[in-house]
Amino acid sequence: MDKTVKYVYLFSEGNGNMRELLGGKGANLAQMTILGMPVPQGFTITTEACTRYYEDDEQIADDILSQIFEYLSKMEEICGKKFGDPENPLLVSVRSGARASMPGMMDTILNLGINDEVAETLAKLTENRRFAYDSYRRFIQMFSDVVMELPKEDFEKIIDEVKAEKGVKYDADLDEGDMLNLVDRFKALYKEETGSEFPQEPRQQLIEAIKAVFRSWNNPRAIVYRQMNDIPKEWGTAVNVQQMVFGNMGNDSGTGVAFTRNPATGEKALFGEFLMNAQGEDVVAGVRTPETIDKLAEINPAAYNEFVRIANVLEAYYRDMQDMEFTIERGKLYMLQTRNGKRTPHAAFKIAVDLVNEGMRTRQEAVMMIEPKQLDTLLHPRFDPKALQEAKPVAKGLAASPGAATGSICFNADDAKRLAKIGPVILVRRETSPEDIEGMTVSQGILTTRGGMTSHAAVIARGMGTCCVAGCGAAEVDEETKTLKIGDIVLKEGDFISLDGGTGDVYVEQIPTIDPAVSGDFATVMQWADHYRKLQVRTNADNPKDAALAVAFGAEGVGLVRTEHMFFGEERIPAVREMIVSETVEQRERALAKLMPMQRGDFEGIYQALQGKPVTIRLLDPPLHEFLPTMQEDIHQLAETMKIPYEKLIAVISSLHEVNPMMGHRGLRLCVTYPEIARMQTRAIVEAAANVRERKGYMIVPEIMIPLTCDVNEFKYVKNVVVDTIQQVFQERGYEFEYHIGTMIEIPRAALTADEIAQEAEFFSYGTNDLTQMTYGFSRDDAGKFLPEYYDKKIFDFDPFVRIDQKGVGALIKMSANAGKRVRKNIKLGICGEHGGDPISVEFFHNAGFTYVSCSPYRVPIARLAAGQAAIKSRMKKALKEVK
Amino acid sequence: MDKTVKYVYLFSEGNGNMRELLGGKGANLAQMTILGMPVPQGFTITTEACTRYYEDDEQIADDILSQIFEYLSKMEEICGKKFGDPENPLLVSVRSGARASMPGMMDTILNLGINDEVAETLAKLTENRRFAYDSYRRFIQMFSDVVMELPKEDFEKIIDEVKAEKGVKYDADLDEGDMLNLVDRFKALYKEETGSEFPQEPRQQLIEAIKAVFRSWNNPRAIVYRQMNDIPKEWGTAVNVQQMVFGNMGNDSGTGVAFTRNPATGEKALFGEFLMNAQGEDVVAGVRTPETIDKLAEINPAAYNEFVRIANVLEAYYRDMQDMEFTIERGKLYMLQTRNGKRTPHAAFKIAVDLVNEGMRTRQEAVMMIEPKQLDTLLHPRFDPKALQEAKPVAKGLAASPGAATGSICFNADDAKRLAKIGPVILVRRETSPEDIEGMTVSQGILTTRGGMTSHAAVIARGMGTCCVAGCGAAEVDEETKTLKIGDIVLKEGDFISLDGGTGDVYVEQIPTIDPAVSGDFATVMQWADHYRKLQVRTNADNPKDAALAVAFGAEGVGLVRTEHMFFGEERIPAVREMIVSETVEQRERALAKLMPMQRGDFEGIYQALQGKPVTIRLLDPPLHEFLPTMQEDIHQLAETMKIPYEKLIAVISSLHEVNPMMGHRGLRLCVTYPEIARMQTRAIVEAAANVRERKGYMIVPEIMIPLTCDVNEFKYVKNVVVDTIQQVFQERGYEFEYHIGTMIEIPRAALTADEIAQEAEFFSYGTNDLTQMTYGFSRDDAGKFLPEYYDKKIFDFDPFVRIDQKGVGALIKMSANAGKRVRKNIKLGICGEHGGDPISVEFFHNAGFTYVSCSPYRVPIARLAAGQAAIKSRMKKALKEVK
Repeated sequence: MDKTVKYVYLFSEGNGNMRELLGGKGANLAQMTILGMPVPQGFTITTEACTRYYEDDEQIADDILSQIFEYLSKMEEICGKKFGDPENPLLVSVRSGARASMPGMMDTILNLGINDEVAETLAKLTENRRFAYDSYRRFIQMFSDVVMELPKEDFEKIIDEVKAEKGVKYDADLDEGDMLNLVDRFKALYKEETGSEFPQEPRQQLIEAIKAVFRSWNNPRAIVYRQMNDIPKEWGTAVNVQQMVFGNMGNDSGTGVAFTRNPATGEKALFGEFLMNAQGEDVVAGVRTPETIDKLAEINPAAYNEFVRIANVLEAYYRDMQDMEFTIERGKLYMLQTRNGKRTPHAAFKIAVDLVNEGMRTRQEAVMMIEPKQLDTLLHPRFDPKALQEAKPVAKGLAASPGAATGSICFNADDAKRLAKIGPVILVRRETSPEDIEGMTVSQGILTTRGGMTSHAAVIARGMGTCCVAGCGAAEVDEETKTLKIGDIVLKEGDFISLDGGTGDVYVEQIPTIDPAVSGDFATVMQWADHYRKLQVRTNADNPKDAALAVAFGAEGVGLVRTEHMFFGEERIPAVREMIVSETVEQRERALAKLMPMQRGDFEGIYQALQGKPVTIRLLDPPLHEFLPTMQEDIHQLAETMKIPYEKLIAVISSLHEVNPMMGHRGLRLCVTYPEIARMQTRAIVEAAANVRERKGYMIVPEIMIPLTCDVNEFKYVKNVVVDTIQQVFQERGYEFEYHIGTMIEIPRAALTADEIAQEAEFFSYGTNDLTQMTYGFSRDDAGKFLPEYYDKKIFDFDPFVRIDQKGVGALIKMSANAGKRVRKNIKLGICGEHGGDPISVEFFHNAGFTYVSCSPYRVPIARLAAGQAAIKSRMKKALKEVK
Repeated sequence: MDKTVKYVYLFSEGNGNMRELLGGKGANLAQMTILGMPVPQGFTITTEACTRYYEDDEQIADDILSQIFEYLSKMEEICGKKFGDPENPLLVSVRSGARASMPGMMDTILNLGINDEVAETLAKLTENRRFAYDSYRRFIQMFSDVVMELPKEDFEKIIDEVKAEKGVKYDADLDEGDMLNLVDRFKALYKEETGSEFPQEPRQQLIEAIKAVFRSWNNPRAIVYRQMNDIPKEWGTAVNVQQMVFGNMGNDSGTGVAFTRNPATGEKALFGEFLMNAQGEDVVAGVRTPETIDKLAEINPAAYNEFVRIANVLEAYYRDMQDMEFTIERGKLYMLQTRNGKRTPHAAFKIAVDLVNEGMRTRQEAVMMIEPKQLDTLLHPRFDPKALQEAKPVAKGLAASPGAATGSICFNADDAKRLAKIGPVILVRRETSPEDIEGMTVSQGILTTRGGMTSHAAVIARGMGTCCVAGCGAAEVDEETKTLKIGDIVLKEGDFISLDGGTGDVYVEQIPTIDPAVSGDFATVMQWADHYRKLQVRTNADNPKDAALAVAFGAEGVGLVRTEHMFFGEERIPAVREMIVSETVEQRERALAKLMPMQRGDFEGIYQALQGKPVTIRLLDPPLHEFLPTMQEDIHQLAETMKIPYEKLIAVISSLHEVNPMMGHRGLRLCVTYPEIARMQTRAIVEAAANVRERKGYMIVPEIMIPLTCDVNEFKYVKNVVVDTIQQVFQERGYEFEYHIGTMIEIPRAALTADEIAQEAEFFSYGTNDLTQMTYGFSRDDAGKFLPEYYDKKIFDFDPFVRIDQKGVGALIKMSANAGKRVRKNIKLGICGEHGGDPISVEFFHNAGFTYVSCSPYRVPIARLAAGQAAIKSRMKKALKEVK
């Protein structure tokens, strides 16, 4: 054990930059102390002590203990009070404080240091016996809860009993005798439950409380919060021990919280509330209605004016909106905490822009202030907040795709298409399949009763930007009888429901929604981000509507057109199926000839929507069996339509069955077997480009993407087919134009042999979804069964399908990107997996020297912002290096 | 075009070392010329000319043409004869000759240079009109066949007609008039079929013939031969143009072939046969019975003695058994060809040992002389050659696993087990599944009517070393009625069949087999190989029998025990299934407790068979659903046995269904979910080691292998479970012993993060089968449908499941092996995929610095030899470098 490590700091020894060591709260208390603000003094036990605590099997090591006691003595000296001193006792609060704010996630204990004797002293000193015993009973309650994990309800029950005995309704109606009574009964309960007397030694109270705070770093809600907010478990929490000041010492005392700006709207004006004669927990409990902060000016103008001054200093110092806690003890103001305030997405943009206009922040800093994740909710419809206050969810599913939607229920794609002509619809299904795509497209929202965050419904809905609540187990769907049951509620087709895809809430009523606004401060910050951004942002879009939406969101082109989605259209699927069951090349070419004009039309639409911006079109990717019907009845119908015997069709379908379809006959493997498919698609792409060029004058440069390459020869084979077809079209048209042929990198071997492939491919587009699956060796479809255990057991820190795995998958990406650049200096490097919309992954691609990321339309602004931030970070790093 | 390239060499300009440029035949003709042997002179057109021919769109470039004509003139000068000279015409043969011998795969044309006029001259010069026109008609026939691709049968029909008209039976009975008649009718047929006169200009004949030989490099049988023998298509063939000598000029002429040693037995004695008054094709045609070579001593002692002398010189020069062709023209001996002779595996070993004993070869060279592939047949039973001569196959399937077997038919595993007690059985099934394992174990051979080289039957049979003919489409199995139909033949249970797993032949009779012999010369060469070998050779074995067999074949340990195969045993599968359908940990532990003693017994057996040699045991690997029944009737039975409702069992089975089982819940993922499985297996392994140690005194060091790792944390989690269990056993026993815990590297991410994993794992064993699947992104089960197209279209040169893909998979292996060694200097690196038995792959692993390869028992000698050869190659390279 290294005795030289300093594990404890007085507030006066730290400063605002020591967040890593002292936690956010500790650093800010130190900074306020430096700034000469009225802060009750104390000390901070560092985050390193927390880490030691876990290393030492959840024990506080002796060297840390002795530092704590040493600093306790210093604190006693500063405060002029002593722990357990019958004359002048010191009371403290013990609070957690991690590097990143985790409000409410960890534990706090107030009034520590009280015991029977001190309570009596306190009564005398304050001449307020009720206050003294009220403080004591509160401490017993908190200590029992936080340290001993006794159920809170047991204590509340005693309070209710005492109130009932007295016949009163509110805590405030209890007098000093009642408080004494409560203390006795609480201590009795404590002894009954724990087998020991309530600890009377303040030092013992302190150490137990510190341990409890360390422990609370790993309580379940803290773990979940960390996972949601990407906070590493290694950070640990600091512990702040601070002298108590009391807002409940009488009517000249009080406590409150305030923001320097409105956290909901961003408006520049002090915003907050307070309660006289109360401790913090009373404000939270909400029994009494607090006053707004401006009322304080009337009650205690001196304190108010000082608070306003302090608020201004703090905002100027931190150059951000502050969230402050204060207490007034017998008329005197004390600052208990300040931190950068949480804010709504709307407020975040307004505050960022205002701070720039006020000269407090640079544009770069303003861009860095926005959390890209916040944009997600901003870009989707949301419920009218007023209407929402009165609505009550009846069930909860997974928040699979953000946004709010309200509409009438329908139970299949056909009904959805029919009803959508009348009004907004919500598609409700057990789970969706590719055959539902058209129905999903016309729906405002999608509700499924099975499947997870990566189920078909969830993935497609996110892609479409459509609100989706998935895997809502409390709901039961009977697709036969077209009923949806949620508990006792039975809903039929046409009944209204509302979904919140951001929370997973399901409502059985109509709730009005508000459309997203993408102008004003939002647009300003995005422009700033674009200014710094190096990485281009494209979108994944399979139709003109999505493409146009993405352009409105700032997309600079389309990075991925999945041609297969077009194949599921009602008027196309027969020809697709005909192609699949063809026995000869001629039959197949006949079927493909029917599809060609439709595909060409699709591409013309997308080219027109993009107005000359680049579009990358991927050749057919999924295994053919995905297009075939699976229900007996549908197969019969298909056999009839196609005039082939049912048995033969069954044989074809079963011959297409694959043991591991993810690793089966798909991607360019289909083109090796059936080059005629590649020929048809290429012709459609190039003719569409020529047509739009001729009609609209856009100089389209087709980018044809060959999926699933694992070997350069394989790529070359298909490339030759594509080039031959292009040359044919050029000959027919009598003129030529530029085009590019590239490949997806989504198979490890493609990444490993990228030097060879780059000799043939003009661009690489990383299919990070598949690349992640192949590199990890698990399929998303199946991993849902065992991965939750990996998070529970802390084997995996994050979901590699959401954030790029930099160690494994990322290594392959960097290796191959570098190889590609070595061989072909101007190779275009893009990414079109779902990672293209994840801010941390976007930063990775920026650093890896990519040309662009491509993501679903609704993620385009997130990617723009994240790419801007990544570029700014790079500039800062570079500047720092140069300074050094 | 580079005019300075020399595309044509006189025989006197080359030598025996110029195989790459002149082909084997050309180099040897040149060498014989140097050695002053009687070789009809001529020139060789290089393999580079062949490559140019294909580069130039199957045209012979002008610069090459002019070199050919230049050298033709030189040849005319040397021979003193001229093309088309009415006085003294030159006739030539045109033969292919690639770097590697490809006997009979490409084309040959004899007697080229004859036309109407030359035929007449020839008749006069030789005073043998019949000979002259016989030669002419033969030339027309060959030219028409090889150059013009006219059907041979049409010509044969004319010969038959002429013979019928004359009323004679043999060609020899035709006289000069008949030959003239044939020439006329052949020319007429030629004109009818091609529309042109038969070419009279010898130069035109020559160029067309050369082109035809170049073309024949890419004829289908040559392609297949190259693929089977790993000959790159880029090599191309050389063309030899050589003056004709005639073995059919009368009874003082003849032709023959001979080996310097017996190619079947290796015995040191001239071995061959000849035919007087005949050309080479007559020997092949087999109408007349040739004489054995020693008869030549009586007929022409001078020629015989010269031939013996030449044979000795050639063998001494090439230091290997020679396969020679000769012709005697009017009493004078000419050498037409010599090459290293093909030999049976048995002969190969005898010759290698004899050459060492005779002082002609070093031991290193002797080891290098054996083709490892040849061992395959050597180590399995084979049919008695005599009995085989009279047997006739009735069908042919895929030669899926070598060896010969004869036995009575049975149609399922249970019948096999029952009948095997009476006599040898052959298991006949449509395709096999894991449930058939026990039946396969007791069978001499396995015949399936479906599935390919990588079907379950083929893979398992190869692993067991059991003869297997797979995918025999001509056979139909009705498992209900227990009948096997092959054409009109209907066989029932108990009827005899015989299989040749090396050829795929199926016989409906009993053919006696001979057991393999692994002593004598074989053992000698293997000892030499072992002497040089650096790489250890282990075996994959799941039971004591296989393990003991492998040790007999020279295995130095077991590299892979697949514990799952043990789970399929009749008395175990109920407990296995009980474990799988368990709903609580307690239930599962109860079921596992039943399995533990059985597993421990398995391991004791293997440890005892290995007598202290190392054994690596892999924890359970396959997805659990593989153990569940699939047939409704079996499910019913299981439900009854287990006393759970049928519906519940169905629900469990369907919940275990996976979309991509290859990438599903298997390997150590099972141990993360159910650590109790790892605990049971670990306990069985360690207790078995302790028991065998206590009973037999072998100091067993258990090696526990954790499969399917993709992340170090995942590995650590399972390792902790394993270590805890080991410590428990140690405590119970009261003593400790050494053990090792390592992992499979079979997922790309494991290879990419090998530096992290090596910090925890003591050894890496590469599962190259899975690693290849994941790296290529295709599953073996499905790739069979599209990979054949990849070979047809020349996209892939070899099967990456047979030979390690050095570019992609190999890059991952090297990268991770190096990372592993960096982090853990003494890390043990092994490989336990099927590549462990492939010679080229073994060389790769030797070069990558591996510790051992592990393969199925029957491949152990192959791996030993290949590893010995790899080590010798390394020594040679090093020596060469030092010389430089």
